[in-house]
Amino acid sequence: MAPSPAPLSDKERLDRLRLIRTENVGPVTFRSLLRRFGSARAAIEALPELARRGGRSAPLRVGTVAQAEQELSAADRIGARLLASDDPDYPEPLAAIDDAPPLLYMRGDLALLRRKAVAIVGARNASANGRRLAQDIARDLGAAGFVVVSGLARGIDHAAHRGSLDSGTIAAVAGGIDIAYPPDNEELQQEIARRGAIVAEMPPGTVPQAKHFPRRNRLISGLSLGVLVVEAALQSGSLITARLALEQGREVFAVPGSPLDPRCHGTNNLLRQGAILTEGAADVVAALQGMAGTALRTEPENGWQLSEMSTDSPSDDSLRTVHELLGPAPVMVDELVRQCHLSAPAVRAVLLELELAGRLERHPGNRVSLLLTATAHGS
Amino acid sequence: MAPSPAPLSDKERLDRLRLIRTENVGPVTFRSLLRRFGSARAAIEALPELARRGGRSAPLRVGTVAQAEQELSAADRIGARLLASDDPDYPEPLAAIDDAPPLLYMRGDLALLRRKAVAIVGARNASANGRRLAQDIARDLGAAGFVVVSGLARGIDHAAHRGSLDSGTIAAVAGGIDIAYPPDNEELQQEIARRGAIVAEMPPGTVPQAKHFPRRNRLISGLSLGVLVVEAALQSGSLITARLALEQGREVFAVPGSPLDPRCHGTNNLLRQGAILTEGAADVVAALQGMAGTALRTEPENGWQLSEMSTDSPSDDSLRTVHELLGPAPVMVDELVRQCHLSAPAVRAVLLELELAGRLERHPGNRVSLLLTATAHGS
Repeated sequence: MAPSPAPLSDKERLDRLRLIRTENVGPVTFRSLLRRFGSARAAIEALPELARRGGRSAPLRVGTVAQAEQELSAADRIGARLLASDDPDYPEPLAAIDDAPPLLYMRGDLALLRRKAVAIVGARNASANGRRLAQDIARDLGAAGFVVVSGLARGIDHAAHRGSLDSGTIAAVAGGIDIAYPPDNEELQQEIARRGAIVAEMPPGTVPQAKHFPRRNRLISGLSLGVLVVEAALQSGSLITARLALEQGREVFAVPGSPLDPRCHGTNNLLRQGAILTEGAADVVAALQGMAGTALRTEPENGWQLSEMSTDSPSDDSLRTVHELLGPAPVMVDELVRQCHLSAPAVRAVLLELELAGRLERHPGNRVSLLLTATAHGS
Repeated sequence: MAPSPAPLSDKERLDRLRLIRTENVGPVTFRSLLRRFGSARAAIEALPELARRGGRSAPLRVGTVAQAEQELSAADRIGARLLASDDPDYPEPLAAIDDAPPLLYMRGDLALLRRKAVAIVGARNASANGRRLAQDIARDLGAAGFVVVSGLARGIDHAAHRGSLDSGTIAAVAGGIDIAYPPDNEELQQEIARRGAIVAEMPPGTVPQAKHFPRRNRLISGLSLGVLVVEAALQSGSLITARLALEQGREVFAVPGSPLDPRCHGTNNLLRQGAILTEGAADVVAALQGMAGTALRTEPENGWQLSEMSTDSPSDDSLRTVHELLGPAPVMVDELVRQCHLSAPAVRAVLLELELAGRLERHPGNRVSLLLTATAHGS
């Protein structure tokens, strides 16, 4: 990683908050903008022109100073800290993922974020045996020195947190860090805020919506060296977390189960696909031994380094060429670069403008697709 | 395979039975002798001298004509046929294994032995779910055109036979083909003799002993393209069958199960070692598709071909050299050849004599060890 910068000024922190709360600005775009313009303030100033060039007619809704100040004081009131991805306290494994949250709220014991962590996730409607296994493995992983990360859902998540409350537990929540969800986990959430740690990407007070959960899942895997799935049906959220873990270069573990229980079909399928078969904490510890933080990418695989991003605006021709190659099906950015006969920095600059215009969607694995609902450009 | 020989004469069949019932003659030695001497009769005549050279002082107890005739008429009375390994009716996958029984008893539907087969084995004290899975998978494999092979034990074996009685089932038993074991499976055994097929290596009337079961297990895997293990504790007989299947170049399948049930630890361990995860018959069918009989070795990997066996007796020096390199721990024959600086045919001739003298034990994977209880030679 680059040497740590000087501590973030309050002004820059506020501007970063404004930037990430800006329409069409996600974590990847945020990072691109910051690298291209050097500061959140400069990026905010450049946004209107970039969005216009990308084909947007209505003005971009940029986060206001008032909104950002309001959000920061709400966080203050509940004792939540806002960590920037280049803060020394920001969890290192999370900083290594492509779409790390530029700003992350946390409550509780900051020291937990610096320890080696393993995620335990699984079915909300888990069996009694599944819950027991999750709790036992969480406790044993704690005894082996690992912090346990989970999502504060019912079932497996609940058991994983319970089992690791004494040794160290981190909950990544989908909504605001102060919002108890599901309501019946409120007591556990408060206990984790007191004895463990909670992290959240959304502003305080955000009631979680369906779309927030996959984003939250990338935090769970991103915070961890590996993800253990204990009971999961086919097409369940836990399998999304496992897939994200793979994309982030993390280990995936799965507990085997009876084919007669649909809650085991997802985990059995993970085993078919090469997940490490796990009957207890020892299986996880053995696989992660010696891995520590060293195996994590400290720079995103398709890093948006400043040097690779054109500092000039892309030409209209480039914009048209890239736009024509895009469709509703996600395509690898690398493939796009190969096909359009433009430089990678030029392509990335085009993608940035399209995204700011609300015409591009980013997908895991450095893939992008065109949002067809937006006004088409040049056609 | 070599072209089928002319139908076996009654005389040669009787002599083969005498040879395989001879002290210290197992399937591998039988095959060596037959290849070296051309007929069972010639081998029987050569036995005393070979055993004496191997270091044996007491005369070798060779199967008598009277004993063999008695055994054949007992088989006749119960309607059992005796198949020689070069009979066209002898099951082809079984003939392909290193230590195929030179003679195999069978009762029931001979046509079943010529169809593609899959073995299903597992715990005798299986859970209700395990039994149900075994029965369902056996039925579905039958519907997919596979004969199901098992060992007529309690639990999983019982369920596997029950599930495949209508479509085709083969029981390989450890004792005599007419001996009901365990007693509570007597009715099932009779039903299989009527509607399926039973095979046995031991003479009729043999009450099964502990040592017969691992030998029987190699028949189960040897008859099959693959072995599916449904529930098995660590260190159980089913895992022996799985190991034998691997050594015979067959596929191994395992049903995953809860880490909280010790009856699943063996199967989960097989999955760790690369067995194909199986939730239903479709997993087995998919893996075996297109494999048919073609993937089976038609000649044993370490074939004891006549051309590789010295037709001369080995020298006393060779015998001493090989003997010195042997110990109670099994060693690969190939390793032995490398270390003793003798030709492979010479080493094999020595091993044959040592075995006939009761001083050598053969192990799966073409390994041999010295039996230390016998009188040591030249020391």
